[in-house]
Parts: sequence; C-alpha cells; structure tokens
Amino acid sequence: MEIARQSESIAVIGANARAAGLARALLHTGHAITVWSPTPDADAAPALRIDGVRSADSWTSALGAAPLVVLCVDDYDELRLILDEAGGHALTAHDVVNLTSGTSEEADRAADRVAALGGRYLDGALMAHPEHVGDSATILVFSGSAEVFERRSAVLACFGSASYLGPAAGTAALYDVAMLGFAWSTLLGYLYTAVLLGTSGVPATTLTPLLTGWLTTTVVDVIEDYAGQVDARRYPGDEEWLELDFPLMGHLVRTSRERGLDTRLPRLIEALTSDGIADGRGRESFAGLVEILRRQSAGVGVTGAGTGQNQHA
Amino acid sequence: MEIARQSESIAVIGANARAAGLARALLHTGHAITVWSPTPDADAAPALRIDGVRSADSWTSALGAAPLVVLCVDDYDELRLILDEAGGHALTAHDVVNLTSGTSEEADRAADRVAALGGRYLDGALMAHPEHVGDSATILVFSGSAEVFERRSAVLACFGSASYLGPAAGTAALYDVAMLGFAWSTLLGYLYTAVLLGTSGVPATTLTPLLTGWLTTTVVDVIEDYAGQVDARRYPGDEEWLELDFPLMGHLVRTSRERGLDTRLPRLIEALTSDGIADGRGRESFAGLVEILRRQSAGVGVTGAGTGQNQHA
Repeated sequence: MEIARQSESIAVIGANARAAGLARALLHTGHAITVWSPTPDADAAPALRIDGVRSADSWTSALGAAPLVVLCVDDYDELRLILDEAGGHALTAHDVVNLTSGTSEEADRAADRVAALGGRYLDGALMAHPEHVGDSATILVFSGSAEVFERRSAVLACFGSASYLGPAAGTAALYDVAMLGFAWSTLLGYLYTAVLLGTSGVPATTLTPLLTGWLTTTVVDVIEDYAGQVDARRYPGDEEWLELDFPLMGHLVRTSRERGLDTRLPRLIEALTSDGIADGRGRESFAGLVEILRRQSAGVGVTGAGTGQNQHA
Repeated sequence: MEIARQSESIAVIGANARAAGLARALLHTGHAITVWSPTPDADAAPALRIDGVRSADSWTSALGAAPLVVLCVDDYDELRLILDEAGGHALTAHDVVNLTSGTSEEADRAADRVAALGGRYLDGALMAHPEHVGDSATILVFSGSAEVFERRSAVLACFGSASYLGPAAGTAALYDVAMLGFAWSTLLGYLYTAVLLGTSGVPATTLTPLLTGWLTTTVVDVIEDYAGQVDARRYPGDEEWLELDFPLMGHLVRTSRERGLDTRLPRLIEALTSDGIADGRGRESFAGLVEILRRQSAGVGVTGAGTGQNQHA
C-alpha cells in the first residue's frame, strides 16, 4: 500500500458497500476522510463504520470539510435529492467526482446540476466489486472535466487503474454498460460452444482451458488488429474475410440445428455477415461489420425460442 | 527444436501449405518423411519441395513406406478418391491421422472408410496458420482412436499442443467450427462495444487495452467458474443473476437504439435472458442460459436489418 505524497481532505457521500470501499482505499493511502450519507439507516451502513473516518452530521458540514467530493450513493434519485439540498453556489470551491451507478443520460444531467451549483464535474465508473477497490487490477474509467481528472489523478489512482475517456460526462457510464454487453456476448459465445461440444460428450471443464488459451492469445491479437481497422474505417481481409467465413457460419447453424440446439446466436452472426456481404464488404475482414452495426436495424423483435414466433419471409 | 527420441517413418498425404507445415515440423524433429499428393499439379505444391523429404510416386508406395499416415488434403472429395483407390485391407498395418479440414459428418464417414480398410483412425483439427505448425502455442485437438492418440503422442506433439476430446471421430471437427463460433461471438461483442463508444467519440484504440485487460482477467475468471457450473448443471447466482442483469440489458438496447445503432446483438442477449427468467432461472447465474441454448429454437429466421422484416407479435 502506497502512502499518498500529500494528504488531502476528501468527502465521501454515500454509505453503501461501494462507498465504503472507496473510503477505505482513500484512508489506507493516507487521506483525511469525511463520510456523510443521506439515507435514514445511515448508522447501520458500512461506510460509516470504518475506523479513522470522520462522520459528518450534515451535507453542508461534509462539503465544508473538503474541496474534493466523491459521490457514491445508491441511485440518481438519491443523488438528485442531495444536489437539490445544496443551494446557491454550494459547490463553487469543489471538484465533484461521481461514482454513482447509472445511465449516461443520468450522468449528463448530474453534470449539468453540479455545474449550475458552481462545481467541476467528473463522472466515473468502477468495474469491480467493492472489496477490490484499491487493487491495481481494478479498472475505473472517467469522463467529464479533464481538469479534475488531471488535478485529482493521485487520489483517483488510490481506487485502481484510472483511464480518462473524454469530456462528455455520460461516456464513463456508457462504457460501463457497453463493457457488460461485451462480456455477455463473449460469455454467450462460450456457453454456446460448451453446449455444442456437450452434444459430443465433451465436458465444459475439458474444453475451457483450450478456449481460454485461444481467447487470451489469438482472439486478443485479432481484437488489437481490429482496433486499428475500426479507427481507420478500413478493413483489409488479408487473413480472413466475410465471404470466407460465411459458409462456415452456415455450417455452424446447420450443425446446431441437427443437434437440436437454439440457433439464434449462430443465425445472428450469419445474418450480420450476410448483410455485410450484401453491402459490398465480402472481401473485408470481420471488422467490416462495424459498418453494419453502426446503422439502425429495422427489425423490432428478436425471434423467440419455444414461443412459436416467426418472421415474415 | 527438440529432436525426437525415436525417428519414425511417416507418410504425409497432401501438398498444400498445411501439409507442408506438418511435413516440415516432423522433419525438423528428426522423423523420416515421405510425401505424396494426389493432385495433378503436385510438382508445384509446397509440401513436395521441402529439402530432406522423400516424394513417393504413388499412394501405394507412400503407404508401403510408413505405418503412420498423416492425411491433409484439400477437401473430403479428394480424400474419398484416395481412400477409394486403396483396395482390400490396404490400411491394416496403419495408424491414420486425418487433419483435412471439414465437417464432423465428413470426419465420421472418413473414420468408417478407414476402418473398412483395416486402419485405425484419429481425426484432428489444427487451429493455426501453416507457418505456426510446430509452435508450442499452436493448438490441435484430436478425436477418434484413443489408442492412436496414445501411441503417436510424441509425433503429434511435433505439431503443437495436442488435446484428445473423445472417441467420436467427428468431435475434433465440431470443436473447430464451435471455436470459430466462440471467436465470432466475442469479436462481434467487441465490435459492438467499439461502435457504441464510438458514438461518444472514444477511439477503438483507446478502448481496446481496457477491454482486452478486462477480458483476459475478469471474463476469463467468470468462464472458468461457469465451466464447473455447466458440467454440474447447477448455476448459483451468488455474484450476478439473470434478474439482476435483465434491466441492464434493456438499458443497453435502449441506449443503442437512441444512438441509431443496429440493436440485434443486445436484443438477442435480452431475449435469451428473458427466456431464462421465464423458465424459472431468474436467480441463476448467466450460465443458466445453457439450459435455454440446449433446446431447439422455434423461430426460423433472424430479424433482418434494413429489410423491413418484422416478426409476428
């Protein structure tokens, strides 16, 4: 545990387990922490029961104690109530870092409200369970005031590895949900593979070291290659291309159907690739599908399983 | 490069770049290699131009030269022609390892044909470009005769890291296409995340180190945990569960729609999760969705983008 070069006075607003994790990480790195929570059962809340943390008896007192305010309340309804309570230019002297979980729209509105109160606003998303706050492997992303991110970088580093994504306050929250989407897509692909090999009697625990080994080497290399392609909006199909992949996808769909499985995932992959080829991208890499994903899809529903739902041919 | 403890005589059948990679890897580890190819333009093929490799003038002569036959021809039509040419019990003295790319059904048929010719059959899938044959990081999976896999393990190790998936000949080929499905699902999730953050101006190259870092730590841990859940068919939702995820998925769909993106991927994730909750699995982990994926989906198509396709409500 590294001790902060300069001890700062920081107010942590919130009493949940995440707020407690934040307060504890700041305290362990040598900062002076004041905690306040707006919730009625605050006395029972973890953030208020940490040795060495000062508990404020009001929002105003908490603000008075520290020029840096870290918000981590349960939701944006609660956050709105707190900010409404702070009248006039209550935050003129303050940098506000908000780690409350919510949508990017909620973060944008909170940023506007903090600005109206005179404060500088940085939004953040914490990608870890509370007990991992402070680990160097814990990822946090921030967006909003670049000035706050710069000035408070030593404090933010107490929480984990912090990255700045840009000036729009809502970007950090967008990253949070987008990253979940990435995980769900990866995990769904994993579960599908386990089910498919399961039809041949291969246990998931036999399969998994092969899959994770391949994921962390080959697939990660491909992702890093695609990153440059996406930014350049050029997708050279030197090693693989959509027209090469397409028949293999058809085979995956047929094999899945023959084995009695839900085919929605392989059919979606095939359908997007078909759209890519129809869009003249047959010789582009799989990354060329970003140009399809960028466009509004016309369909409203996704074909249901087991409900007899069907689409117009 | 490790020299084989015992030099073996091995026939490599095929002349393409993959066959050449296999022959070269075997030669480098000290084995005596005979190559034969049935294709007319064989003289120009890479596998026949390797120094130190003997070129057979017929299939019979190649078989006579070696008790271990490694098949790696262009497709199963070609393989069928070769096996048809071998009459009687031509393979009685042979172990046959087939690395020709194809479907699990084709592998099953080849196994039957080799057995009819008196041979013992092991099917394999090579997960790498030809130039990586022989690297320890190169993954190969095998299925079919456990006896051949055991007896030839030192030879198979010349190609890379070899795993045995079970006695059904078609399993290795199934793994090949299933692993591609896993990659496509992961890559699609990555591209989707890049497109979504792109709407907030975050470059893919800024995003990617965060995503790959998270993939190779947290997501891999989750996959390893799910493997045990899938095999046990028990999915305890201790850290996350379908009912907790579901509203976040709805938010991902709405955010994507508001930003004008194709919503098919997040809608599929949401629909499968909805099916899982409807199936009484709301308090199970995301891995509980394997029970949904195991069942035939009733829908025939996947909602198209930009084609005005729609489903019955």
